[in-house]
Amino acid sequence: MPHISLPEGIPGISSGFAFRPETAKPMRELAHLLLHEPSTLSQAERELIATYVSSQNDCLFCQTSHGAAAAAHLGEKAGTVEDVKHDFMRAAVSDKLKALLVIAGQVQQGGKHVSSESVQKARELGATDLEIHDTVLIAAAFCMYNRYVDGLATWQPRDPAMYKAMGEHLATHGYVMPSINR
Amino acid sequence: MPHISLPEGIPGISSGFAFRPETAKPMRELAHLLLHEPSTLSQAERELIATYVSSQNDCLFCQTSHGAAAAAHLGEKAGTVEDVKHDFMRAAVSDKLKALLVIAGQVQQGGKHVSSESVQKARELGATDLEIHDTVLIAAAFCMYNRYVDGLATWQPRDPAMYKAMGEHLATHGYVMPSINR
Repeated sequence: MPHISLPEGIPGISSGFAFRPETAKPMRELAHLLLHEPSTLSQAERELIATYVSSQNDCLFCQTSHGAAAAAHLGEKAGTVEDVKHDFMRAAVSDKLKALLVIAGQVQQGGKHVSSESVQKARELGATDLEIHDTVLIAAAFCMYNRYVDGLATWQPRDPAMYKAMGEHLATHGYVMPSINR
Repeated sequence: MPHISLPEGIPGISSGFAFRPETAKPMRELAHLLLHEPSTLSQAERELIATYVSSQNDCLFCQTSHGAAAAAHLGEKAGTVEDVKHDFMRAAVSDKLKALLVIAGQVQQGGKHVSSESVQKARELGATDLEIHDTVLIAAAFCMYNRYVDGLATWQPRDPAMYKAMGEHLATHGYVMPSINR
């Protein structure tokens, strides 16, 4: 049961967004920018970073919904999502993404855990400063979203079909609500 | 030295904001809403929550700048800032704020650490659902801001006078840049 009177029947972060639309707006915009707008990192790669951090933070709703968004982007290679969560070094992703996932994992532990060595390694594998920046910020932002979802004890459905539909919607439309937020 | 080529001479989070103005906009707006816009929690109380979480995350820039903003709001009672960071149960703040700081500390550890008991206690001491929501979100958001600041290894000045001036500016003007962001 949620810690506060969130609107019923709305899953996960959406119930917090419905409770407080003012704060939802910048939170949605930040996710949209980081995960959906054009970038030299693919949408699938960015969703995998979000999924990995959410799994490290043990947030069911976020790891499942963003995992589903990543799977929607990946198509046939959707099994990669589980591989990234469990042992990304053995997943079928690029060496550059593996190096960025190392950085994301360090951010999840705390900002000071990010090492010069891991940044240097990512750079050697072709990561740009902007890609490193966005990796740090995606990981940091999911340390917020995950804590918001679990810190309010939001309702988190267990039905995989619901997450699949949500992931496909997010992969197609992103995170802002055009008619309300733009 | 920062992990990426951030603009020189700009302290802390502002250097990340200058590097990537697109993501700065929603991040500034969220801070402004949570810390500066009208609320039944005073600006000083909200800055104290931000300061406490930032100190738990060991982020020098955030705990010092938001501590200075809290001190600017508190005036003569500015010593309260250090008391909150070191042992808030003995600080000269309301019992309701102490109960909210317990929740904020639980969020800092992870969303699932927030207990029904701590929420119930805050409610018994007069906290509303909106105040509990905003406490959870302030704490969650500073788990993002702190990781962003330290995860990029931003330049963080040691000069107390700089933080005092920054705190007074934030306490007066808040977090959005009106001419750019509004």
